[in-house]
Order: sequence, then structure tokens, then C-alpha cells
Amino acid sequence: MKKLKIKNVILNGKRKDILIADGKILKISKKIKEKSDCEIEGKNLAALPVFFNMHTHLAMTLFRGIGDDLPLKRWLTTKIWPKELLLTPEKIRKGTEIGLKELKKSGCPFFCDMYWWPQETAKLVIKHKMGGILGVPFIGKGPLIFSKRFALKNFFELKKVVKNYPSIKIAIAPHAIYTVSKNNLVWAKDFARKNNLYYHIHLAETKEEIKFSKEKYGLTPVEFLDKLRILDEETILAHCVHLEEKDIKILARRKSLLVYCPTSNMKLGVCGVFPFRRLKDSSALIALGTDGVASNNNLDMLEEMKIGALLQKHHFCRPEEIKAREIFEAATKIPANFLKIENEIKKGNLANLILVDLTLEEFSGGKDIISHLVYSANYNCVKYLIFNGEIIYQRN
Amino acid sequence: MKKLKIKNVILNGKRKDILIADGKILKISKKIKEKSDCEIEGKNLAALPVFFNMHTHLAMTLFRGIGDDLPLKRWLTTKIWPKELLLTPEKIRKGTEIGLKELKKSGCPFFCDMYWWPQETAKLVIKHKMGGILGVPFIGKGPLIFSKRFALKNFFELKKVVKNYPSIKIAIAPHAIYTVSKNNLVWAKDFARKNNLYYHIHLAETKEEIKFSKEKYGLTPVEFLDKLRILDEETILAHCVHLEEKDIKILARRKSLLVYCPTSNMKLGVCGVFPFRRLKDSSALIALGTDGVASNNNLDMLEEMKIGALLQKHHFCRPEEIKAREIFEAATKIPANFLKIENEIKKGNLANLILVDLTLEEFSGGKDIISHLVYSANYNCVKYLIFNGEIIYQRN
Repeated sequence: MKKLKIKNVILNGKRKDILIADGKILKISKKIKEKSDCEIEGKNLAALPVFFNMHTHLAMTLFRGIGDDLPLKRWLTTKIWPKELLLTPEKIRKGTEIGLKELKKSGCPFFCDMYWWPQETAKLVIKHKMGGILGVPFIGKGPLIFSKRFALKNFFELKKVVKNYPSIKIAIAPHAIYTVSKNNLVWAKDFARKNNLYYHIHLAETKEEIKFSKEKYGLTPVEFLDKLRILDEETILAHCVHLEEKDIKILARRKSLLVYCPTSNMKLGVCGVFPFRRLKDSSALIALGTDGVASNNNLDMLEEMKIGALLQKHHFCRPEEIKAREIFEAATKIPANFLKIENEIKKGNLANLILVDLTLEEFSGGKDIISHLVYSANYNCVKYLIFNGEIIYQRN
Repeated sequence: MKKLKIKNVILNGKRKDILIADGKILKISKKIKEKSDCEIEGKNLAALPVFFNMHTHLAMTLFRGIGDDLPLKRWLTTKIWPKELLLTPEKIRKGTEIGLKELKKSGCPFFCDMYWWPQETAKLVIKHKMGGILGVPFIGKGPLIFSKRFALKNFFELKKVVKNYPSIKIAIAPHAIYTVSKNNLVWAKDFARKNNLYYHIHLAETKEEIKFSKEKYGLTPVEFLDKLRILDEETILAHCVHLEEKDIKILARRKSLLVYCPTSNMKLGVCGVFPFRRLKDSSALIALGTDGVASNNNLDMLEEMKIGALLQKHHFCRPEEIKAREIFEAATKIPANFLKIENEIKKGNLANLILVDLTLEEFSGGKDIISHLVYSANYNCVKYLIFNGEIIYQRN
């Protein structure tokens, strides 16, 4: 059993030694004398939980910076879709590899993805010793049709790839309520329930979607999915920008995971804001995501936390609207709890943690490390990323 | 005459060699055979202009992360002001040194500052071979009074420190229209004109300021300063969040430099947005600034460009509201032109440039380096900062 010792690291404001073995945190104390196979001197480091990026289209690193600053429809129809039509498994591998490196360097070993050929993504996630929910895409309208048959093919291939790798979970990922029929939305949920899968969908992102939903179904998108009995504790809803009070009540009750994607929402001008305070006060579960790189244009969870907090303060004209710790928890603790993945640095837990470099100027001034992580630092502060007890990334 | 050669660097989309000597760009061509004393291999680098951070309170690095997420008034009265009362020249030096390091690593050799003891800041700017407009603070209301007499004392001391260092320029910096009397605002402008100084003031930042101005003077803050003949080509106005159409016309006509501070405005919830598009379309001069670290909480101009562009797109619900190149110019070309500092990489100009690392994942995807700088990269991409022909920063 290989042992890793982190010495003199700041953990919750105190200097500690941390001993890791067999993927788990064996011991935390002021001084651990026990020998180890590998040692990290932590005197300039702080130990913190890892980040979860809960809405991505990872291989879209291929389209970074393509068609920025265009109106949404023109961006999709003239830039993104034509390029997506030319995607191949090989290109997906290339884009995914870049994305995984970006995720790791921002202290994020786990992501919730929705993109083509998840079976290819899975192979790379395993190679990098990371984790994720990989969504099998499913779309019935638009230039690209992913039929039920194609989804099933992808699903069975993906299942085979990940069967001995518990850090990858599978989702069925119907694109949105305006691109997948009511019957297929329901079929996908039934399939997910039967196969013990998550259900990952874009929801209430634009005003056009709300209009569509009300006109076609006479319901808000949230009411519509709720009526179809799709909202539950295995459902992940990306965006949730345009919500009414009744939607918030439903979402809080169903305990689906709501993924706030502030940068993407701002960059695409979706004309609304994820109602963080109201959702949080209603005990809804809030996570954070970067969305795809094409609308961000990176995967830096530290930057995402800052932009997420700033957007709330700006939009509601209140500096006190959201606290650094709340957005930090949306990036760490809340998604971990939702996924039942241990992400608290304590004895007996799986060793999932980052070590951040406190010598950077960004950590000068006050003593609140969470504030500095949210408002001051960027991914550059992440010196080590440890996932399931292994160092999967180290900044030189 | 010491010579520096940058080989094979990407400049405006093409591979070039750049030869620098005596502070200036001696030659740019496909292949320079001439020998040099120092060589940078640029095959993974792109050369771009340097950034100008046009509104800072540099030594406030001391207060980073102190009192985040509090209502504005409580933040100032319970956190910032009590700490500022205890400032000493020694503390100012400590905070400034941290700030200068942060500026350099984000590719920014020049800043426009307003803070206590500018003569101490000046000594450090000279030490670091950087440049700036250092403002002599002047405030008549609040817990800290900086009288005319104190301003004059500071001014003469500062003048002595910078007299042989042309990269530092001096401003008189009355805090705001609600903390400095009408007579003193005018006295400061007269003093600036007589002594060939810039005039740096906070303007139209909060709704309270607009209310104050209209109630006390029957004018908007912009109209008020214009009536006092303070607005001209040597005036720098930080914030300009709450503007009416008539203000925009005045500002465009007077050619004062307007400093957009998006992160600070969002973090403090000032409840409005710098009207970038309307100002730009009126030919007003727009620069970019981080404001003090206490309300940002860093000095990263790359992050500031991204947040600045996102805020416009969000607020006006239009992805096309602002283009990457426009915010990039607000951070580079426009302030440089205003200050008459050469910041274009061409033969004969002063050698002011950054070299950015194109091997980072953030530069993958599309080919538009400006897009990647604005939306994807952070300060981590800056490998070299060259100011007045000297390498003043190099990332290891």
C-alpha cells in the first residue's frame, strides 16, 4: 500500500500533516511521524476540496474563439453547426484531451459532459485518472439528429468502456425540450431509470425556450418536465436562467441539480440571470459549470466562481447578494453531495483535494483563503490535484 | 548599445524577427541576421502591445479580501476606512510592491494610480522600471482629510522623486465631487494646468452621487465638471457608470479619458453599467481599469477585459454588443494614444510589448489571438514584458 504524506499544509486555518493511502485519507494530525513513499512539503500550500464542473461540452475546445461576438443564431448556424457536422471520433479525442488538461490545471477532476462519442471521451478520462458523468447525446431537431437508435448504440459502447471504472457515471442527455419530442424525453427518463443513469438536459436557458414551452405545452419548461415526472434526484438541469416562482418551488422539492453557467449566459446574452439567492433560500441544489469552451472560452472553475458571484451582485445591485463561500460550495460540496462523492478533507474519506500556492500575490492581504480563491486567484494557484488518492496533476 | 533580438515570433499573424536597441524597435523583418547581446526564441510566442491599467489604488493589495460581500457603506465604514487610518508610508511601500508585481505579471507596465504617499509609490515604480500616472490625493470629507496644504507637500515631494524619470507622470487627484468642494475642484484643475499635470477623479460611480450632484448643483456630475471647465484632454474619469445622453455628448466632445472598471462596479453592486457602445459610437475615449484590489480583488488586465466584455453582452442582452478587439483596444491602444506613449509594435517606436505563450491550452481552437487573450487566457500566458526596450518581467 503506497503512502503519500503532505506535511505542514494549511487545512481549515491550521497547519496539519495529511497521510493518504489506498485512495483514502488515513490520518490528519499536527505531526505524522509515519514514513511514506512520497512526500509533499506543504508549508506554502493550503489543502482544499476539488472542483466539480457540472456542465461541459468538453471537446468544444476545438471551437474556442470561433464566432465570438456574433448574435446567437448566426453563431450557431454559420459557425458551430457546420463545424460540428464535420466532427469525427478522432477530432473528439483531440478536443477532449485539451479539455481534460484544462480541467486538471484548474483543480477539477470531475465534470458533467454532454457531447458526441462519449465512449471516446471515457477512454481519455480513464487514461487521465479523472471522473465524470458522461452524457449520451440525444437530439431530434436541428442539423444533427441523434436518434434513439444512435443513442442506444453509444450507450452500450460507453457502458462497456467504463464497466470497471467507477469514477465515470453515465447520463442520458436529451439536448433540450425544443429539440427532443415529449415522447422521447419520457422514453429517455424511463431508460435512465431502468439503467440507473443520470439525466442531463439544458433547461430554461433562453426566452425563446420559455415562449416555445408555453405556446406548445402551456407550461413553463420546469412545469413541463415535472409533469412528465422527469425531475428527480438523478436529473441535472443546465442553465435555469428564466425561472418563475412556481418553478423555483418545484426545483427545490425535486432536488434535481441546477447548474449555474454564468460566463456562458453572459457571453451569449441570454438576457436573464440564474436566481441564485432565491433558489438557495428555497434549498434547491446549486452547482456551477463553465458550459462548453465555445461560449466561455475556457474551463477555469476559479474564474467561473468569480464571474458567478459578480453577476449576482451586479444584477441584483447588492454586494451582499451572494457570499464567496456560497459560490465555492456550488463548485465543490453541493455537487459532491449530489453525486455521493466524498469531497471533504477528513479522516476516512477518499482523498480528493487540491493544494494551492499561497505564495502568489493573489493570496496577500486578508486571511480568508476562500475569498482569495473566488475573487483573486485563477487556475495558476493550483499546484497539485489529488483524486482518489493519486496525484493526477502537478504544476511545475 | 545593447541589443535584444526576438526570433520567429508571431506578430500580426506572421512570423517575424524583432530587433530592439536603445529602448526602441530598430528593425522588424522575416529574418534578422544582425547579432544581439540577448536573444529570445519566439517560436511559441506572439508579440502584442502592453496593457495600461488606468484606474488603481495600488497599495490596497493590503486590504484584499477584507470585507467582501458587505453592503458598500458597511464595507467602507467598518472595514476599509478604519484600516486606512492606520496606514503608514512603510505599509504603502509594502502594498505597492505587491501591486507592482501583480501588474507586471499581467503584462501591464503602466498604471494610473490614486493613493496615499504617491512619492513612496514613485520610488518603487522607478525601481521596477515601470511607468504610471501617480495621483496626489485630495479629499475634503470623510474620516481622512487630505487638505490642499497636504496635497501640495505630497506634490512637491513627488515631483522631486520623478524629475529624471519621464515614465512617471503626475496627476492631481481630487477624490470625487461629493468629497471635495466646488472651489477645491476648480483650484485643483488650475493647479494641474499651471503645473502640466493630469487630473484624475472618480465620477458618476453610484446613484447616490448622481442624486447628490443634482440636489446640490442642479446638474449631473458630468455637466457639473464641464461647467467648472475641468473636462479636457488631460482629465481621467474613473467609472462613468451612470450617464445620461447629454453626458455622453459632453464626454465625447471634451476627449477626457473614461475608465471602465467592470469588476469593481459589479462587485460593489453600483447598479448600472458603463455605456460602452454608446460612448464608443460617440467617439469618446475609453480605457480599462481594475480599480483597487479591495474591490476586484486582483490586478489582472486579461481577466478585466473578459469581465468587461461579458458585462456589456449580459446587460444589453446582445452577444454582439462589444467585440473582443474593442475591449482589447481599451486596455492597450486608446490609453496609450491618450498618454502619447508608443504602444504599437513597429519600427522606430519605443519597444513596449508582451510576449504570450501560445502553447497553453487557452490558445487552442480558433486562430484569433485577441479572442483568446480576452476570453480564454489569464495573466499566466504572459511570458515576457518589455517596457522602454527592457525586459522588466519574465515568467519562469
